[in-house]
Amino acid sequence: MAKKSTQVQSIGQAFRVVPGEFDVAKIDPGGSPVGPRTKTAAAADMAEVGEQLDALQEALYAEGSGGGRRRVLLVLQGLDTSGKGGTIRHVAGLVNPQGLHIASFKKPTPAELKHDFLWRIRKQVPPPGRIGVFDRSHYEDVLVARVDQLVPAAEWRKRYELINEFEAELAEAGVTVVKCFLHISPERQRERLIARLEDPAKRWKYNPGDITVRAKFSRYLLAYQDALTRCSTPAGPWFAIPSDRKWYRNWAVARILLETLREVAPVHPEPSYDPLVELARLRDADPLR
Amino acid sequence: MAKKSTQVQSIGQAFRVVPGEFDVAKIDPGGSPVGPRTKTAAAADMAEVGEQLDALQEALYAEGSGGGRRRVLLVLQGLDTSGKGGTIRHVAGLVNPQGLHIASFKKPTPAELKHDFLWRIRKQVPPPGRIGVFDRSHYEDVLVARVDQLVPAAEWRKRYELINEFEAELAEAGVTVVKCFLHISPERQRERLIARLEDPAKRWKYNPGDITVRAKFSRYLLAYQDALTRCSTPAGPWFAIPSDRKWYRNWAVARILLETLREVAPVHPEPSYDPLVELARLRDADPLR
Repeated sequence: MAKKSTQVQSIGQAFRVVPGEFDVAKIDPGGSPVGPRTKTAAAADMAEVGEQLDALQEALYAEGSGGGRRRVLLVLQGLDTSGKGGTIRHVAGLVNPQGLHIASFKKPTPAELKHDFLWRIRKQVPPPGRIGVFDRSHYEDVLVARVDQLVPAAEWRKRYELINEFEAELAEAGVTVVKCFLHISPERQRERLIARLEDPAKRWKYNPGDITVRAKFSRYLLAYQDALTRCSTPAGPWFAIPSDRKWYRNWAVARILLETLREVAPVHPEPSYDPLVELARLRDADPLR
Repeated sequence: MAKKSTQVQSIGQAFRVVPGEFDVAKIDPGGSPVGPRTKTAAAADMAEVGEQLDALQEALYAEGSGGGRRRVLLVLQGLDTSGKGGTIRHVAGLVNPQGLHIASFKKPTPAELKHDFLWRIRKQVPPPGRIGVFDRSHYEDVLVARVDQLVPAAEWRKRYELINEFEAELAEAGVTVVKCFLHISPERQRERLIARLEDPAKRWKYNPGDITVRAKFSRYLLAYQDALTRCSTPAGPWFAIPSDRKWYRNWAVARILLETLREVAPVHPEPSYDPLVELARLRDADPLR
């Protein structure tokens, strides 16, 4: 499982889904296998992560503006109230919004259903230089599609392989894919659903269908178990993030994103001009002087 | 020029372009006609603005998710180094990135040139519930198009009216348009161009053509004078922002955006379900208990 042999311990390693070893039932949604033990400690680390993410994002953007093709895609999946939106707010919110490409995938429209399941996903692959974030993704097509039998079993079973091929293709195109499963407990989900109902400003986030989906909690976990096991690949690793505590979830995803960007190691493009010549133009031959 | 008769003094009023009164030559790019006098004071106010913007943005997003059609579009224009990107980072960065729709308009592509000048703009109008931000815009078609004579004078002259019609159409569709001209002095531009050249991490932002454009500084100001005068309308007011000091520019744009959102006054949608019924379902009939 250890991907790096450097001295620096990878934080992502603690969350990484290793096919054959991963068992969702053994992941404690309230746990903290690594990192800060308190909200205060997490906040302190997040400030540092934020600075580093910001600098790496700018370098990635600069690289893209110089013709580089590389980009990063963070896929977020999780049951209702697991905090996909909150993670975007607190993690993606750490960098310049201009460098982001955020896409949210809801129930497919009739138009989208006329195409293969990856069609609408391909349209949202982040452009070079960007950090893309998917709020739900093509994984819904092996999650809700399976639990609610939206397609025959033979069909969704084929999709694991199609997804792996798709993500390998993305890697070829310069897209570093990193996927986080935000894992919450049924108890915490219940609390959060109740909180949404009690706060008038949060009621828009609630849908009576949420309880229908909640009743299938264990079937979803089974679908996640298979999806994560079948599709955690070198080209698109999955990370299972204990998400009962928001601050821990945000910290973990931020750290994983930071490690991903560090591995990408974007570089500022070499200027296509001579900076000294240009400086002389401005200093000695400024047209406005 | 006074738009409101309420007790609350509008900050935007101090920057608003009033046709017939506005004279770009009289606006001091280093001035601060209203608001904080120091960077520290501005930072303190920005924290408050950030909180309020964040809440209003969430309400706008909620309204949109409930079927509302309203949205806001912030247009940023200004000469090179005036800080369009920095404003996006520091002002748009105050809200949840999921609620943003940012579009950057560069030199039109051959495909874009085959259509009328508003074609590419229409494709980037923010969806309902979002705050759109344009880094450059359709105004380039009466600015660079005029200064560099990309089209005959008769053509760009017609565009003021076409722009006003377009923005009135946007207003009809629920889009509140607010436009900020980031006004810097030639001296400050020179300093910033030099700074970009001196810092290897900033060289990607520089282009030798920037000096060619700089040589036309006064012609651009004339083009801005006309564009702002002709197109500062009730449906799409222009604000001229002194931008020699970044903190003042950010503060002013943030305040104007906040005032705009306050006027929009987005409301959380009424739930389509009965919250008490749903609370009872979770409390007494939770399928997982």
